[in-house]
Amino acid sequence: MSCVVEPTRVLVAGGSGYTGALAARLIDRHPQFDLAAVTSRSDAGLKLTDLYPHHRVDVVLTELDLDRTDDHEVDAAIVAYPHGAAAPVVAALRARGVRVVDLSADFRLRDRDSYEHWYGEHGAPELFGSGVYGLPELYARQIAVADLVANPGCFPTATLLALAPIARSGTIIDVVIDAKSGVSGAGRAPTQKTHFVSMDENAMAYGVGAHRHTPEIDQELAVLGAPVTTTFTPHLMPLDQGELVSCYVTTSEPWSQERLDKAFGEWGQEHPFIELVAAPPGVRDVRDTNVCSIYARADARTGKLLVFAAIDNLWKGAASQAVQNLNLMFGLPETLGLEP
Amino acid sequence: MSCVVEPTRVLVAGGSGYTGALAARLIDRHPQFDLAAVTSRSDAGLKLTDLYPHHRVDVVLTELDLDRTDDHEVDAAIVAYPHGAAAPVVAALRARGVRVVDLSADFRLRDRDSYEHWYGEHGAPELFGSGVYGLPELYARQIAVADLVANPGCFPTATLLALAPIARSGTIIDVVIDAKSGVSGAGRAPTQKTHFVSMDENAMAYGVGAHRHTPEIDQELAVLGAPVTTTFTPHLMPLDQGELVSCYVTTSEPWSQERLDKAFGEWGQEHPFIELVAAPPGVRDVRDTNVCSIYARADARTGKLLVFAAIDNLWKGAASQAVQNLNLMFGLPETLGLEP
Amino acid sequence: MSCVVEPTRVLVAGGSGYTGALAARLIDRHPQFDLAAVTSRSDAGLKLTDLYPHHRVDVVLTELDLDRTDDHEVDAAIVAYPHGAAAPVVAALRARGVRVVDLSADFRLRDRDSYEHWYGEHGAPELFGSGVYGLPELYARQIAVADLVANPGCFPTATLLALAPIARSGTIIDVVIDAKSGVSGAGRAPTQKTHFVSMDENAMAYGVGAHRHTPEIDQELAVLGAPVTTTFTPHLMPLDQGELVSCYVTTSEPWSQERLDKAFGEWGQEHPFIELVAAPPGVRDVRDTNVCSIYARADARTGKLLVFAAIDNLWKGAASQAVQNLNLMFGLPETLGLEP
Amino acid sequence: MSCVVEPTRVLVAGGSGYTGALAARLIDRHPQFDLAAVTSRSDAGLKLTDLYPHHRVDVVLTELDLDRTDDHEVDAAIVAYPHGAAAPVVAALRARGVRVVDLSADFRLRDRDSYEHWYGEHGAPELFGSGVYGLPELYARQIAVADLVANPGCFPTATLLALAPIARSGTIIDVVIDAKSGVSGAGRAPTQKTHFVSMDENAMAYGVGAHRHTPEIDQELAVLGAPVTTTFTPHLMPLDQGELVSCYVTTSEPWSQERLDKAFGEWGQEHPFIELVAAPPGVRDVRDTNVCSIYARADARTGKLLVFAAIDNLWKGAASQAVQNLNLMFGLPETLGLEP
Repeated sequence: MSCVVEPTRVLVAGGSGYTGALAARLIDRHPQFDLAAVTSRSDAGLKLTDLYPHHRVDVVLTELDLDRTDDHEVDAAIVAYPHGAAAPVVAALRARGVRVVDLSADFRLRDRDSYEHWYGEHGAPELFGSGVYGLPELYARQIAVADLVANPGCFPTATLLALAPIARSGTIIDVVIDAKSGVSGAGRAPTQKTHFVSMDENAMAYGVGAHRHTPEIDQELAVLGAPVTTTFTPHLMPLDQGELVSCYVTTSEPWSQERLDKAFGEWGQEHPFIELVAAPPGVRDVRDTNVCSIYARADARTGKLLVFAAIDNLWKGAASQAVQNLNLMFGLPETLGLEP
Repeated sequence: MSCVVEPTRVLVAGGSGYTGALAARLIDRHPQFDLAAVTSRSDAGLKLTDLYPHHRVDVVLTELDLDRTDDHEVDAAIVAYPHGAAAPVVAALRARGVRVVDLSADFRLRDRDSYEHWYGEHGAPELFGSGVYGLPELYARQIAVADLVANPGCFPTATLLALAPIARSGTIIDVVIDAKSGVSGAGRAPTQKTHFVSMDENAMAYGVGAHRHTPEIDQELAVLGAPVTTTFTPHLMPLDQGELVSCYVTTSEPWSQERLDKAFGEWGQEHPFIELVAAPPGVRDVRDTNVCSIYARADARTGKLLVFAAIDNLWKGAASQAVQNLNLMFGLPETLGLEP
Repeated sequence: MSCVVEPTRVLVAGGSGYTGALAARLIDRHPQFDLAAVTSRSDAGLKLTDLYPHHRVDVVLTELDLDRTDDHEVDAAIVAYPHGAAAPVVAALRARGVRVVDLSADFRLRDRDSYEHWYGEHGAPELFGSGVYGLPELYARQIAVADLVANPGCFPTATLLALAPIARSGTIIDVVIDAKSGVSGAGRAPTQKTHFVSMDENAMAYGVGAHRHTPEIDQELAVLGAPVTTTFTPHLMPLDQGELVSCYVTTSEPWSQERLDKAFGEWGQEHPFIELVAAPPGVRDVRDTNVCSIYARADARTGKLLVFAAIDNLWKGAASQAVQNLNLMFGLPETLGLEP
Repeated sequence: MSCVVEPTRVLVAGGSGYTGALAARLIDRHPQFDLAAVTSRSDAGLKLTDLYPHHRVDVVLTELDLDRTDDHEVDAAIVAYPHGAAAPVVAALRARGVRVVDLSADFRLRDRDSYEHWYGEHGAPELFGSGVYGLPELYARQIAVADLVANPGCFPTATLLALAPIARSGTIIDVVIDAKSGVSGAGRAPTQKTHFVSMDENAMAYGVGAHRHTPEIDQELAVLGAPVTTTFTPHLMPLDQGELVSCYVTTSEPWSQERLDKAFGEWGQEHPFIELVAAPPGVRDVRDTNVCSIYARADARTGKLLVFAAIDNLWKGAASQAVQNLNLMFGLPETLGLEP
């Protein structure tokens, strides 16, 4: 008797943006996933290589045809739609039994009022709150059995990986998060803001006091044991991929460097994509990988804990984390197809 | 008896693009020019500082109102409109007696068929060919008495300054021009091409065999004494301002390095913005200046002459050269307001 | 009777580094200062244009010859030596009656123990603490009569300008400063850290919990009315010139946006180089200027005050601020030669 | 009977430079090669991850110990030493039966006088000229049986791949090559030239008329059928990895676009790493791959052929091409471990 493992067929919905296109590439190269189709609302008919020559994914973008997903032609989907537009597509895919990793914010928040405050009306209220928060380092077991996984935002990903070992202690009383992102984080749409000449030799804060990743960070920190109102400010830097979060943590009791090292040491040992480093990480060190590189210091002078975490916003902050989630959902090793 | 020199009042038409905005800045700071107004078709009502904070020109962009130019409120204009759209505006300004420096290509070419081949129908045929080619290092006397000056393209500017001393000898039989420009050369309009992520860590040729600056270069080289069909290929580089042309010249007779040095030495001495340098110039050396930096070598191995010239495409390639032209037109020192 | 104002003769000692070379350029172009000489320990004999073609300062670097300063050939000096090495040179210049603006940290701190802790033994203990802290927006009157001005560090400059209007209220109880600097801040010495390939597409924190600008910030905040132990972390970004400080301020009482606007409005009106802006400033907006651009928000959600300030680290963070100080010291308008 | 394929054990000699380190990474991830050791003259004792965190190769750099290669512990070596220093090491490895791919220029040239003219005395004269020129697209059969392969220079690689289909026709009479390289091409040594601030926003020619890759290009073009003296000028661009050659070819007879397409079409079909593209390639399209992307035009206006080829200078220009050579030498598929 021969036993052949059928590859899992994965649809990427919304493949013309940066994260969807990268997800298509990662699925295309994955040893156990087959790329069923890549859809695009704006660019159907074009080849993905016309938009992204460097991804070398030889498929033609198509319109999303949900009927094709009926006949077991698609086992799973990565949905890379904008916030708000994602929910109805996710709902339709779920109705056809497709297991979904959603890159949007539509299923990340658990508080309906908060969602509506930050994002407006929800596009699939019956599914609101039913997603598992797809940060594998925190929710691997739940992800493994989930049918709908809400892939975290890029800033929450880096922040929560940086703070989890401290947050779990229940000692955090205040957090300031100063985040820096490359320009790909602003998306593929050409605007004055993303014009080369606008960002070259430039850097600035944006979304001051009003970035939508804030409630997501607060929600998950509370789950971990740190029910604080964080101060979160993203900045744009003149580089393409890469994200650095600098976290300034006030605790209710002093932490020694030893305690900090121990907490992070355990954290790093459990999780293959967490790298603890001996000097503040550069975003270049994690470019094109699913790795989160972390450096944590107990600052005796101020009593604060300082944690710096670097990820690639398009990879661990979006597309490769989606593949990590799919690996877990389909019983595969977490690192399959994502070895750095 | 007191003698007060009235400042010349200069209008900048089309101030929301990179070159128009810079022209406005240079006029605003100029000791003898007053900035009469800055107009914009797309952004009237906005302040120039909203579009270009770093220029610090405190004016509100207005619609172009030609009637206001009647009452001697405007002595001169720099027109920074796209090719084709410039000609009618230039004609209207000329009809009101305003002396014009036009940044477009509309009055650069002297062959009507060639213009129509490269640009389409001309917007003010009665004025076609009536402009003086505004390269001050070649046409200073004509510019001084001109009412309509056609400011050269950025690539022709660098190329002609690099080749003039050789072209005048009548010995050029072939020229290959490999040009490299920063992204500001592609204009302010946000497109996939000018998106930060598209150009970051990137470089490529464009307009291969078909760039509109080609007939302009050929026309002026012929005037200088080199009636050749040049091979001209521009490239984009990942920087904002700066342009480098690398010229590979085949001559009908051998040139020694001494002859080359002599030809360029005289060229440099006559012209305050020509800098002859002892090593291939970097575009950074001329950034934010009206300088053209040149390095010329006679290559004994191949018999070719190699000339490298660097300019700032927005300055000497457009806006500051327009001011240099205005200086000449109004009897002022060529360098006034443009000291590097 | 004719009255000719003699120009002030200014020596730049240490002109081969980024800040000294820029100081030489600014003095060279200044309407009331003459560039007496530019000295260099490492590059004497070279021309400044060989090291910095874009500065176009046509002088030969010389060894520092203190005797030449005796005969009233030098009225003032900008000293751009490394910390520790500056103090003896400053002392020697002072002994000859030369008024000095020192770019190093040697005369910034007022606590001797603190200096020795952060920098080691002082090179001119008899002068320790005798300098006026050269932040013109805070100490203009003292600077005007000072013979020794300690030019602030780049990070303290941006931070203090960002926090002064709040600090004076006496309500600050905690400050987190997340600072981002371009690579020129790391100095001209070529190292692995400053190699293009190391910093391109990269960003990272450095000097975590241990940057020497920390005691300087704390000292001056205390003088202003905020005796706090700040958390200060600098980061490197992949750009050449530019510095952004993001300040997260906890106060003992709530501030409304109105109160914040009023405090900063007065601050901006008094000082020509302070620009208050309506959106978070980009470092590109202040490049090659002496301007500090500031954006301040009262964050109702967290109760914190968020202040973002951008400067050019080589200009307002060093060389042009030195010229601003010299202007004050010699009774000239603060902005002379520094108009943005 | 079980048949286990023993992996080939590969030494990387000179692993602290950019190309050696990347070679170590590619061998480390290769399905059929084992990384036997990585040696370094300057950094022995350090971990490779200390120098290159992003490569994630967990080995300690060692001194080269040739005796360890005796006992069949090493089957092959990639030597990444500077020109001149490579030859003796290659000779010593060959004496021990190790098959070598040498990244230096020491075994590329076949004319001894030419080598000595461009590089000085040769370090292993008995082996001079015995290497096979390691451009797999030209010499696959010879490489397969070679014991010493001279990996081409990065510029010759791109140039020869761009020109081979034309050169073979015997119709080339003149070639101008304008090459542009990222800063990694200048090597890892920190110098003023490679300082971030020197190259940021900059671009310039270098080695004008005197670059050492010139004789290598000429030699191989002659073998192909184009015995010309090429004009070759490299330029530096402000990016890290990537190389673009723009070739301007004069032929003895006219070429139609059809003929050109046919010649390149066959070229592309035979070689898995040759990509023919429909628009001038950007270097970003081939970053971190072994691909050479080519665009060729017959310019009716000038009669010249214009060919543009993009590679990653560290990959196809050095380290991944070495692995491609090793694949051929050990009977493996050319693309193994190098799939883009």
